[in-house]
Amino acid sequence: MESLYVIKIGGNIVDNQMLLTKCLQAFSKVKGQAILVHGGGKLATQVANSLGITQKMVEGRRITDAETLKVVTMVYAGYINKNIVAQLQSMGANAIGLTGADGNLIRAHQRTGSEIDYGFVGDIDEVNSALIQQQLLNNSRLVIAPITHDGSGQLLNTNADTIAQNIATAMSGLYKVHLVFGFEKEGVLKDVNDEDSVISSINSIIYSQLKQDKVIFEGMIPKIDNAFLALHGGVQSVMIGKAEKLDELMKGEAGTTITK
Amino acid sequence: MESLYVIKIGGNIVDNQMLLTKCLQAFSKVKGQAILVHGGGKLATQVANSLGITQKMVEGRRITDAETLKVVTMVYAGYINKNIVAQLQSMGANAIGLTGADGNLIRAHQRTGSEIDYGFVGDIDEVNSALIQQQLLNNSRLVIAPITHDGSGQLLNTNADTIAQNIATAMSGLYKVHLVFGFEKEGVLKDVNDEDSVISSINSIIYSQLKQDKVIFEGMIPKIDNAFLALHGGVQSVMIGKAEKLDELMKGEAGTTITK
Repeated sequence: MESLYVIKIGGNIVDNQMLLTKCLQAFSKVKGQAILVHGGGKLATQVANSLGITQKMVEGRRITDAETLKVVTMVYAGYINKNIVAQLQSMGANAIGLTGADGNLIRAHQRTGSEIDYGFVGDIDEVNSALIQQQLLNNSRLVIAPITHDGSGQLLNTNADTIAQNIATAMSGLYKVHLVFGFEKEGVLKDVNDEDSVISSINSIIYSQLKQDKVIFEGMIPKIDNAFLALHGGVQSVMIGKAEKLDELMKGEAGTTITK
Repeated sequence: MESLYVIKIGGNIVDNQMLLTKCLQAFSKVKGQAILVHGGGKLATQVANSLGITQKMVEGRRITDAETLKVVTMVYAGYINKNIVAQLQSMGANAIGLTGADGNLIRAHQRTGSEIDYGFVGDIDEVNSALIQQQLLNNSRLVIAPITHDGSGQLLNTNADTIAQNIATAMSGLYKVHLVFGFEKEGVLKDVNDEDSVISSINSIIYSQLKQDKVIFEGMIPKIDNAFLALHGGVQSVMIGKAEKLDELMKGEAGTTITK
């Protein structure tokens, strides 16, 4: 099977043009097929503030009300997505930027049943793997913004890590999939304040031990849980580390590699 | 050859949810292949105003400075494009929304050599007809936002009428192309203040006469010139009329039909 890299980059990279360019250069040169899923960054908050839209937070989670959805659709699907696509095109990569609504790429439903009303937040139901394969066969590099739809005309805001994991899992029957989570740290750290404390390799046994010993920073737990979800869904390996070190990350020369 | 409808809808339709839905319903049911090119509408101006970005106009033409480009990219490629796509998906049409940067769909260059510095405005060099054909063969309905790129990483603002005309012309070797300009009036009018004065059919001889007699409203001239450019480039027919009457327009039962 051919290799497919599903690479998620976080807001910190999107906000930093120099690091973003470095990351996109590495992405444009990936051997095999590759999909980029990008997060949001500070621009959405800045635009919302400028428009006088107050960001509602409940228990540390951002609530996506109608006005906020408008802003994230503009910023993620418009500004960020198209600037990344144009940059990749300038690097010779045939990038095509999509949201979950395009071609019914990612169908989701509005989150309900939670004690918190998250607003227009979508939990994923289905990834259109046939469409992704078609686009990859056309030699396109997909660039995916974290906006999904419910099939009834409603756009929804969906976490980019979750999108990357769901795409990676959905494609694992067709490709040898490697999932890369690029973020602001060197990898999973033993000591959250020490960038030299990267744990180079984690499997489920080590992970249980690390959680039991409370070694892993709490904020990392959802990312690693997502990684194991992908691995149990058929993904070959998951790498976590600095997005601007994409090359080294993919080779396992930097960051944390997670395996079953 | 199979039929392909290239349909441009203006800002007035984009701004009016009821008319937009009516128009999209007709678009979703077009027999044969179909591409929608949408304009901007008032939202870009509203967002720019809210963000404190002053719209610069020179001789009645909007200047696209860096901040305005940011706004139109957000609004056209993000908000408007993705809401249209989500609505079409809810109507059973497999819509996919693209800008000219995506898949190198429309390459342009920044307008220079004019006495006015238009800023980041792109004049079209090339339409990627192979990519459009691929997407149509995948049974997608394309929804195109009026943003292009220069291949060097720069996004550009390009007139939606011009995009529609260029796409129609580029595809005319592969399909029997009909170009539809949907706008706020019933068609080309003998009297700009009388919606009942539609000229149902115009060819180049009639057009010369109408221009000579100064019958046609000045604002219509670029649209009709665009229509003739398309016809001379291989497009079968061009229809001009109210976007919400898309069905009747396509059948020639409303609006103005322009032929060579």
